[in-house]
Amino acid sequence: MRATSPNETIDYEYPLHERVRTYLRLEHLKQLLKPNNEVDATNYSRYFDALFAILELCERSDVRTDVQKDLDRRRAQLKVWAQHPDVNQQQVAELNERVQQAYTAIQAMTRIGSALKQDRLLSVTRQRFGMPGGTCNFDVPQLHFWLHQSQQKRSADCDRWWSEFSALFNGLELELELLRGQAPFQWVVAEGGLLQESTEPLSLLRIRVPATVPAYPVISGHKQRFSIRFLSNAPQQGKASYESDVEFEVALCP
Amino acid sequence: MRATSPNETIDYEYPLHERVRTYLRLEHLKQLLKPNNEVDATNYSRYFDALFAILELCERSDVRTDVQKDLDRRRAQLKVWAQHPDVNQQQVAELNERVQQAYTAIQAMTRIGSALKQDRLLSVTRQRFGMPGGTCNFDVPQLHFWLHQSQQKRSADCDRWWSEFSALFNGLELELELLRGQAPFQWVVAEGGLLQESTEPLSLLRIRVPATVPAYPVISGHKQRFSIRFLSNAPQQGKASYESDVEFEVALCP
Repeated sequence: MRATSPNETIDYEYPLHERVRTYLRLEHLKQLLKPNNEVDATNYSRYFDALFAILELCERSDVRTDVQKDLDRRRAQLKVWAQHPDVNQQQVAELNERVQQAYTAIQAMTRIGSALKQDRLLSVTRQRFGMPGGTCNFDVPQLHFWLHQSQQKRSADCDRWWSEFSALFNGLELELELLRGQAPFQWVVAEGGLLQESTEPLSLLRIRVPATVPAYPVISGHKQRFSIRFLSNAPQQGKASYESDVEFEVALCP
Repeated sequence: MRATSPNETIDYEYPLHERVRTYLRLEHLKQLLKPNNEVDATNYSRYFDALFAILELCERSDVRTDVQKDLDRRRAQLKVWAQHPDVNQQQVAELNERVQQAYTAIQAMTRIGSALKQDRLLSVTRQRFGMPGGTCNFDVPQLHFWLHQSQQKRSADCDRWWSEFSALFNGLELELELLRGQAPFQWVVAEGGLLQESTEPLSLLRIRVPATVPAYPVISGHKQRFSIRFLSNAPQQGKASYESDVEFEVALCP
């Protein structure tokens, strides 16, 4: 029986390119940040952890330039598509408009996070968040005070902080949407729990495993080669690998 | 006007003893962990962060022995109290019973966290949680799989992990309750925003500031000496210190 409803599968993704790896991390962190949620004494730890991790990733690599280059490639791609006789011209034009807007917004950005470095509360808090349990009120009384300000004041601060990133994330999410949309899911079989393939250069693997399979995929690879090995969730006698055939879906995004 | 309702004050605490510092961190982390909550895809990051921070603190210092010694001192103290003619004998007997039970439970504990080190999911996940954004599903597919297990299975795992700590936290929270109960709040004035005092050896400062004061206390000190300096929440011309008199409450817990 093939499980196709989203409730009956577990979806995994694996980046085969460093750039995409960073994008997926940032997308994940944005979900933890949830900028539209209200930050309060019960959830601030998750919020600031995510904010500081985003800052650190943006400091480590030039995400802004990467996204800009990717969107530029998409523009060129869309021009080629528009020449194709069977294409839905309206859809291509709409997409082109979105890509163009995202590109322009990123181009206008100043250095990501530079304004946040000037923020006293964030600087003090960031130093402490690396320590285990370093978010007690005696570690950062300033943060404790802030958490007792009005929700309106806190939300205004969060909006201001988020505004540093919004153009970047807008572009990054569009790029991921286009990347994911480029390849359909196909059924494959990992014989004895293992699938190894050499392919055209890829950016991203997407994997959809029926929830009934009592194993999870451990993926390794880089651009033109990948292997997916299923490991048992409840290993017996220390044997981690799952050695039955696994039928699952995979999408190879170039 | 004196603010006495909890809604109108902001409470701070400051440990003057390394042992109490660790207790406060652990108490704070337990609140983040909230073992009775259900762990799912939206909150797992906070849960595991707190769990790993608790493990790290317990590995760094011998919290178990500290709590045990503290409870032993409480037993001796209660014996002295029971001799006092005006004391409520029933209350003292009840408290003694609680201390005795907590003490016995801690004495019976094996080394904290040793069972958790054998747990495959926790070991793999812990390695990754130190990285910024290191909780993506491609980093720890095993965790992603676990998050798709039934809530019942996840809760059983959480209960099992928590059982490693419950006796320790039970004793630790009792010790903090007794410590906090030892000293009443008293009104004091920080003239020009500063209060410095030399005292008997103290373990913990508790501070209650009217919410109308636009400043937060930065505390430093060790055992027999402390200073409380108020810093302005909205510093003007780079001047951080708040130089008005601040009337607030403090409790000096020995």
